[in-house]
Formats: sequence, structure tokens, C-alpha cells
Amino acid sequence: MRLRLGCRFEHDASAPTPAVVLVEPHSDADGGLVAERWTSEPALETTSFVDLYGNRCRRLVLPEGPSSFSYDAIFAISPAPEPVPGPDEGQHRIEHLPDELLHWLLASRLCESDALAPRAWELFGGTEPGARRVQAVVDWIHENVEYGVASVPTTGTVEIFERRGGMCRDFAHLGVTLCRALGIPARYVCGYIPDIGIPGPFPPMDFHAWFEVWLGASWWTFDARFNTPRIGRLPVGRGRDAVDVAMVTTYGAASLRRMTVWAYEADERAELTEEPLLETRSG
Amino acid sequence: MRLRLGCRFEHDASAPTPAVVLVEPHSDADGGLVAERWTSEPALETTSFVDLYGNRCRRLVLPEGPSSFSYDAIFAISPAPEPVPGPDEGQHRIEHLPDELLHWLLASRLCESDALAPRAWELFGGTEPGARRVQAVVDWIHENVEYGVASVPTTGTVEIFERRGGMCRDFAHLGVTLCRALGIPARYVCGYIPDIGIPGPFPPMDFHAWFEVWLGASWWTFDARFNTPRIGRLPVGRGRDAVDVAMVTTYGAASLRRMTVWAYEADERAELTEEPLLETRSG
Amino acid sequence: MRLRLGCRFEHDASAPTPAVVLVEPHSDADGGLVAERWTSEPALETTSFVDLYGNRCRRLVLPEGPSSFSYDAIFAISPAPEPVPGPDEGQHRIEHLPDELLHWLLASRLCESDALAPRAWELFGGTEPGARRVQAVVDWIHENVEYGVASVPTTGTVEIFERRGGMCRDFAHLGVTLCRALGIPARYVCGYIPDIGIPGPFPPMDFHAWFEVWLGASWWTFDARFNTPRIGRLPVGRGRDAVDVAMVTTYGAASLRRMTVWAYEADERAELTEEPLLETRSG
Amino acid sequence: MRLRLGCRFEHDASAPTPAVVLVEPHSDADGGLVAERWTSEPALETTSFVDLYGNRCRRLVLPEGPSSFSYDAIFAISPAPEPVPGPDEGQHRIEHLPDELLHWLLASRLCESDALAPRAWELFGGTEPGARRVQAVVDWIHENVEYGVASVPTTGTVEIFERRGGMCRDFAHLGVTLCRALGIPARYVCGYIPDIGIPGPFPPMDFHAWFEVWLGASWWTFDARFNTPRIGRLPVGRGRDAVDVAMVTTYGAASLRRMTVWAYEADERAELTEEPLLETRSG
Repeated sequence: MRLRLGCRFEHDASAPTPAVVLVEPHSDADGGLVAERWTSEPALETTSFVDLYGNRCRRLVLPEGPSSFSYDAIFAISPAPEPVPGPDEGQHRIEHLPDELLHWLLASRLCESDALAPRAWELFGGTEPGARRVQAVVDWIHENVEYGVASVPTTGTVEIFERRGGMCRDFAHLGVTLCRALGIPARYVCGYIPDIGIPGPFPPMDFHAWFEVWLGASWWTFDARFNTPRIGRLPVGRGRDAVDVAMVTTYGAASLRRMTVWAYEADERAELTEEPLLETRSG
Repeated sequence: MRLRLGCRFEHDASAPTPAVVLVEPHSDADGGLVAERWTSEPALETTSFVDLYGNRCRRLVLPEGPSSFSYDAIFAISPAPEPVPGPDEGQHRIEHLPDELLHWLLASRLCESDALAPRAWELFGGTEPGARRVQAVVDWIHENVEYGVASVPTTGTVEIFERRGGMCRDFAHLGVTLCRALGIPARYVCGYIPDIGIPGPFPPMDFHAWFEVWLGASWWTFDARFNTPRIGRLPVGRGRDAVDVAMVTTYGAASLRRMTVWAYEADERAELTEEPLLETRSG
Repeated sequence: MRLRLGCRFEHDASAPTPAVVLVEPHSDADGGLVAERWTSEPALETTSFVDLYGNRCRRLVLPEGPSSFSYDAIFAISPAPEPVPGPDEGQHRIEHLPDELLHWLLASRLCESDALAPRAWELFGGTEPGARRVQAVVDWIHENVEYGVASVPTTGTVEIFERRGGMCRDFAHLGVTLCRALGIPARYVCGYIPDIGIPGPFPPMDFHAWFEVWLGASWWTFDARFNTPRIGRLPVGRGRDAVDVAMVTTYGAASLRRMTVWAYEADERAELTEEPLLETRSG
Repeated sequence: MRLRLGCRFEHDASAPTPAVVLVEPHSDADGGLVAERWTSEPALETTSFVDLYGNRCRRLVLPEGPSSFSYDAIFAISPAPEPVPGPDEGQHRIEHLPDELLHWLLASRLCESDALAPRAWELFGGTEPGARRVQAVVDWIHENVEYGVASVPTTGTVEIFERRGGMCRDFAHLGVTLCRALGIPARYVCGYIPDIGIPGPFPPMDFHAWFEVWLGASWWTFDARFNTPRIGRLPVGRGRDAVDVAMVTTYGAASLRRMTVWAYEADERAELTEEPLLETRSG
């Protein structure tokens, strides 16, 4: 199955403004890249780097005045829903966790797992460790937190936990925070998600956020917003929380005028020379 | 000049308790290791790893009942006070910062630089960028924050900023937070500091915390607690904030009974077979 | 100044054949990427990874029958010739080399610096250490080795040294080998080189190979084939020698039918939608 | 079970000589470190670093005249023989190998797998891929190569293959080279090996060399010299071949006067304050 995905950002800057852009699928995304294209208007010089967490970032300087940049790609994906851990998939005792996973137990800016630990144990300490405990956390968030309540980039999970409302980013933060508090390595993920095989009424195309936890011998995807296995989910950035993986970070005087995102099933013969089918949101 | 440094932790656990220990000087510490020794009582098995930030960590499982472990070393250090940046040492424009430094501009659990950015610019926006601005930040903390006001491991910098009081950890967090808010890469450091050439009345030996900022083409040490160049400072851990570099992290049911730290000038012929001269603090 | 660069490989395979492709400019290439495009015919799925040396590689499986893939990009480059070290740029004493540079003193498959050390010291031991010694090595190769003598992928430097003839790859290997033998960290580089500002009669466009040495506080480019500063040199891969940075590695039954490379100065308004101007070589 | 292991090197230098020392067990060694000690006479300053392959190295400068340094440790090890892959443990198709394993298919200085590929396929192409093929390679080396034939540090595997004789290093190189030629990721390992549970007449204690191959989902140890599962094998260095993991590399005018190695089963209550039981070899 083929996925067409990408995004376009339009800015207006009162002075040249440095920016970091993180919109390209992570190199360990399932499936394979068939074609990709990066363009900008006016033509902007960019450099690339891979950050501490393996994310593929671009740097550029937005010029004074209006400018835009776009990423567009075709991906081959599996037509099957994403794998879910079996209910008996085990949780590691801390002493058996691989060294590099200890990092993902630490509290972070927006996931104050240290502060929420007592509440996490109160709510979930009685569940069975492992996949069942993580699913209990996800079910609880899905059922008790209202989707669509606005938050700002500095809204932490303690506040979301009390408010019981948020956006997909906040749902992911809640999952990360509660799992870390319970001794389960967890990381925040943002990326593309197409609306394949989903009975609506979800908005069809946007950036999305979810989280991953370490069970058994691998990372598993959980999504407290949708709470159902999806097709074609494509991670872009992974980090401790949303602070680490902003799609676009501008340092200075640029306004985002418009952001357009696409992620949809495409014909096997789709080419990047065709215009993408768009959903538009004003920034 | 030779430095004898080390520490000893004594725990009592009601069940086997996994722990991570970060007490050995960082591999990029100035000076050279002459001798080092790791011991435990009873004899505990440990494994070593280097974390995401290059810190040298050990893992072990504290047994049920009382146990202790010690690190002891002799280091050759420069007898000169640590280097300080010249007043004209420049601050990079964001677009000229090396890629790997962008990480050190991000807000973190205890350094909410995003939330404090308006206050940082209000206080220091009128100073000259670069070393002078960093020194203004450090002077401000040194003069306006009372040393010795107790805080807990989850106390963030927003709270310290309002309270105007804290411990060395909080002084370092304030420096990190204000610098990041001002676009200057900054990282938290903990380590050993001997009382060489200091007129007191500082407590002579303990773990200490300070911070580093990137100016010109390197990291520079700043210490808002002492605000004077020191001799023989030895970094152990570097991270976004204190969350990343706890000296000992226990996961479970162990109580710290006693912590002993030493860091003092030693004779050129000092050997680890002699007992260290101790200062003791009850945990 | 703008550079249009890229390549196209055409294969014919008797069975599906895995391949690794290394043709995209290194992320630390000077200058900035303006636009880039990856395409294949038929549409092939690819995954990306960054290897141990920071090179940006793609993996794919060539299908049975004919297939092709292309990389095409526009880069903004400096119109000035590349920097050269001053004659006094110093060579580090081994004990002062940064840790990570020791790797680049080791002998490798095609750069037998251990075996050639006596000859290296005999020839260059009397020159002044540092930039002057490296330049003496490069001048010697440029003057004493005949360009255009065919070699095969397993031809090592001991053989090239004796034969006094080779291709650009062999010239680079000689430079790497002699410098390592003399205690100067050196690495092999392959990439694109346009024919800007060069009075010919060099072939205008092809992949090329050169090498870098560590002097003072950075890596410097040396090119024993051309021995003159170039404009717009773009590194693709760096490694111990050519073994580490093959443009295309196929594991199995695929024949390369045609390889096309381009690298030339382009108009400021060049777009990737225009066909590149081609030089063609049969594979 | 406890292992006492370590080594002592004695040098005599006509001028200060920089050196790199690689004698401490690798951080991923099975089992746990109980105690360790590093000492030198006269007291030498050292710095530590982790190389490209994760090996734990020390740097120091040997002074003019005689000097020595020692590493001594107690390790807790499993009393069971090391695990061996089941005969059906599979070999990956190249296209399914994890990205980071491709590196271990490349030819290297002393493992010219490119040159020996025809011979490897001739000899082992008829065997079943996977663990059976690797075992066939190891059996062939064990039966066809004479142990104890002297070689020098620049002796490559092509020469060993023809000569059919070598030391443990050469046996390991042969295994690495033939496996890589057959498309099986392989790496060279050196380390400590005690003589536990072995009916002799092997020399009881020395540094040893073996190799690891990737089968199924992990690295497996193979040892063409002993060709039988051992107890308490402790890896120190891993690399492409012996070039990458010399125990001591000196850059200059130092002579090795004596090297002493120990690795033997120790009492549960063994402490580093007791002298190790020694076997001595003159350098």
C-alpha cells in the first residue's frame, strides 16, 4: 500500500529568522520510502543533522518577508494494522532493563513523572505489570480525558491530569508520564497518521502524537487518543516529550501564516509531480 | 598537584533494590587519573555503562540488609584556578551554533526556560551578549538568591526564582535556565570540589553543582554559588538538569543511612591504601 | 553560487539483489542544500541509515530485470576556493590528539600504513612536521605517481606505492597511508567535484576521491590528484579507505549497466524539474 | 563463581612515550565486576575514553626510564559454559540485517574477506547457511591450521590461509574473514580466558583472541583455537581485526620488558589486597 504524506509551512518574518524543521519520517519508520522531495520558495539553503534521539532535522534561516517550505513523500506501508503486544508481554524488572532504556524512566519538562508517581500507583498499582498495566493506563486516559480542550506548549502533565482535558499531545504526555512513574520506559512520538480504515469522524489528516513503551524486547506503540491499532502510522520525531520534537522551531521574529499537512492512501503509481490532495489549517 | 577524592554510601534495604551510581569523574575531566578503586561490602556485582550524555554510570542491586559501596581516587590536577572566558568571548547567533548545541537550549524538567524567558529578557536583555551577559546572570543569582534554603528533588527553577533561595543545585538550575532563555546553550554539572585556596567559611568537602555555557568555541564553567574561579573542580555528571545526574538512584526499598564525600589536596606520594580524611554527613 | 549535482545508476539483475547506496552529500558538507530529489524506476522502497562514520546511506533491493535510481540536488556553495592550512599549521603530538582522532592513525584494508611506515619516514622524516610535511607528501604523490593507471577494488597502497600509478582513489589512499604512517590522522573521502575555475584538461564531471588530515584544530582537505584548491568540492562519504564508502554495494546478481554523474555550476534559478546536463560513462 | 583477572606491563623508555592501553573488560561483558584497581609505578596520570567500537581505553605517557602499570579485578561469572547457537540458528539475508551490522561485512586490514571470498565459497558454499555453516568454518580452521606458528602484527589472513599455521590471533582472523566472505557479520574479540574446566594442556593464563558472528538476533562467540564452550571468557576489545584492539599501543621509544597476565577462579572472599597468582611471560 502507498502513502502520500507531507506538509507545507508558510511564514512571514520581520527579520531573518533561524529555524529548525523536523517533518521527515524517522529513519526507522516501518515501510520504505519510494520518493521524496524538499522544496522552498524562495530557494532557501538548508543543512541537515541527526539529533541526540536520532531525529532527522533541517536548519535554515527564514528570510525577511513571506517564505514557504514543503516536504512531500511517497511511502510504501503495510496494509495491516500495527502490531499490538500480547496481553502477557512482560515488563522488565528495573535491574534487567538494557542500559540505554534507563533514560526513558526520567522525568522531563512536560512529563513530571516524579510528581505524579503517587497518583499513578494509586490508580494502576493493582493491575498486572506489563502489557495489561499499560493498556489499563491507556484505557483510563481514553475514557477519562476529554479530547479537544486547548493547551499551550508549556502545559505540563500535572495540569492535564487535573484538568482531564487536552489535545493529542497531552494524551501522549499523560501516557508517557504515568508509564514512567510505574517504572515502564516510555517516549513521546509525533508523526503522520492517515485515516485509513477508520470509521471517522476523526479529522482525516494532521500531525499527530502518540507514545511508545518498552515491553518484552521492543518498543510498542500506544495511542491514548484513538486507542485502536492504526494503519500507516509514520513516526517523525521521538523524545522525552513535545519539547524535544517541535515540528518547526523559530528563533525570533517569524509568524506562521499557514500550515498544511497531508497523509493519505495513494495510488500505486502515484508520483510526486502530482499535487497532493490537501487539508488546510490556518496557523 | 594531587587530589584525593571519593565517596562512600551506606544503605539499608528491606528487599533487593536496583540502583544506578554516578560518582566517578567524567572522562573529559581536566587532569589525569593516577589511581582509582571501587569496592563494596558485601562484595556486590556491578556493570558499567556510559549514558546518553557521556556520564560513567554503574548498576548494581543493593542486597537486603545493610550494604555499602565506595569510590576512591587520586587525580593529578592543575594548581592554577580554572580558566574564565574573556569579557569579549562571544555568544553565537543561533544560526551559527554547531548542531549538537541546539539540544542545550531546550527547556527541561527543572529548568523551565520557556516559562522564565520573559523574566530573563526583562532582567538581562539590556546587557551585552556573550560572556558579559552570562556574568551578569551569575552575579545576579549570587547577589539575589539566599544560599542554604532547603529544596526537594522536584523543586523547579520557576519556584526557586520566586523564592530567591536554594541549595547549590538550585543556583546551578537558575543559571542554566536563565542562559537557555537568553539563547545561550547551558548544561548542569555535578561533581567534586576541593576547598583549595578558598578563604572559607565554605564547608570543605561535598558534592557540588555548577553549570557550563557555550561561548566562543568551547564550554566554560560558571558557578553562581561561589562566583570565583576554583582549583581542582572535577565534573562527574552532565545533563539537562539534576534529574539526569543523580549520584545514586535507587528503585525501591532502600534507605540511605550515611553518605561520606572527600575531595582534598593530597601529598604527591599519596596512595589509595591509606584511609581518606573524612567529613561525614548523615543521610 | 549554485551547484547542480547528482547521479543515476542503471542495473540489470537476474534475481532480486540487496544494495546499499551512498551518493548523497555528507551532512557536514560546506554550503547548504537548496533542493533534492530521490527517484527510482520502477518505484523502489528504500530505507535510510547513518553509518558508523556519519555517512548517509540508503538500502534497497534491486528487482529482477532492469531498474534505475537517481539522486539530484541543488546546493549553494561558496564561490571561493577551499581553505588551505597555513604552512605553520601544526601537527599534534600524539599525546595531545583528541581521543576520537586516534582511530584515524590505524592501518586499514587498503591503507597499510604499518607496512609502509619505514618508507614514509625515509622519504618525509626530514621535512618539518605539520602542514609542510603533509604538503611534501602530496607534492611527492602528485609528481611521482602516474594518473590513469587502472587498479581494482582490492588494490592496496603497498602495491600502488611500488607501481607508481593509479586512479584518484589510489592517489587518495597513498596520501592517507603516508600521513598515518607519519603519525598524522588521515581519512579517505569520496564525493562530487565540479570543474569550476579549472583550466582543464580534466574530465569535467565524475565522482572523485581525496583525503583529509587533522592539523591544528580541524580537518583539512588535500587532493594529490589535482594538488590545487578547488571550488565546490562536496564530500559524500568518509571512511578509513575506499572499502568503507563504496557508492553502490550490491550483494548478489546485479550488473551495473550505466552510471551517470553530474556536478556543475547552475543558474541561481535552477530547479530540479529541469533535466540535468549530463556526462555519461558506461559501467 | 569468582574470577580474578588482570595484567601488568613493564616498560623501559628512552624518552617520554605516549601509549594507549586496552586491558579492562568490556562494559557488556557477561557477569559483574566486584572490585577493580588501576595502579602504576611511578604514579602516572591517565585519561579514559571509549572508542568507536565501545572499548574502554586509557591514555598515558610512559616516562623516561622504567615504569609499570597494572589492572587487577574480581569478576562474578556464570559457572556454566558459554551459550552456543542451536544448529538451526539462522543467518540473515543481507536485506534483513539490521543497519549497524553491515559494517561487520567489510574487509579490513588483516581480514581480506574480499580477496578470500572465492575460496570461502568453494570450501563452504555447500554447507547449510546459519549456525551449521559457521561451525563448518570453525571446524575446518581447528582441523587444518596448526597452532603455534609464529606471525607478526602485519600478517594478514591471506597469508595465514596459505600457510595453514598461526597463533590464536590468526585463528580468529581466519574465522572473521571466512564468515564475512560468506555474508555473515563477524568481529574480532580479544580478552581474558581462564582455564576453568579444561583438561589442558593449554597454557593456563594469557590474553586470548576469538571472534563473534551475528546469527538469529544476537552475537555468538566462536573460538577456532579451542573449539569448545568455555567458562568465564571475558571480552576486552572488539574491532574489525587485531589492528583495532592492541592491548598496548606505544608511539615511540618504549620497550616492553615484561608482560604478566592472570585469569583464574578465585575464592568467593578474594580481595584485591592479596597478590594475584602469576604466570609470567617475558616480552
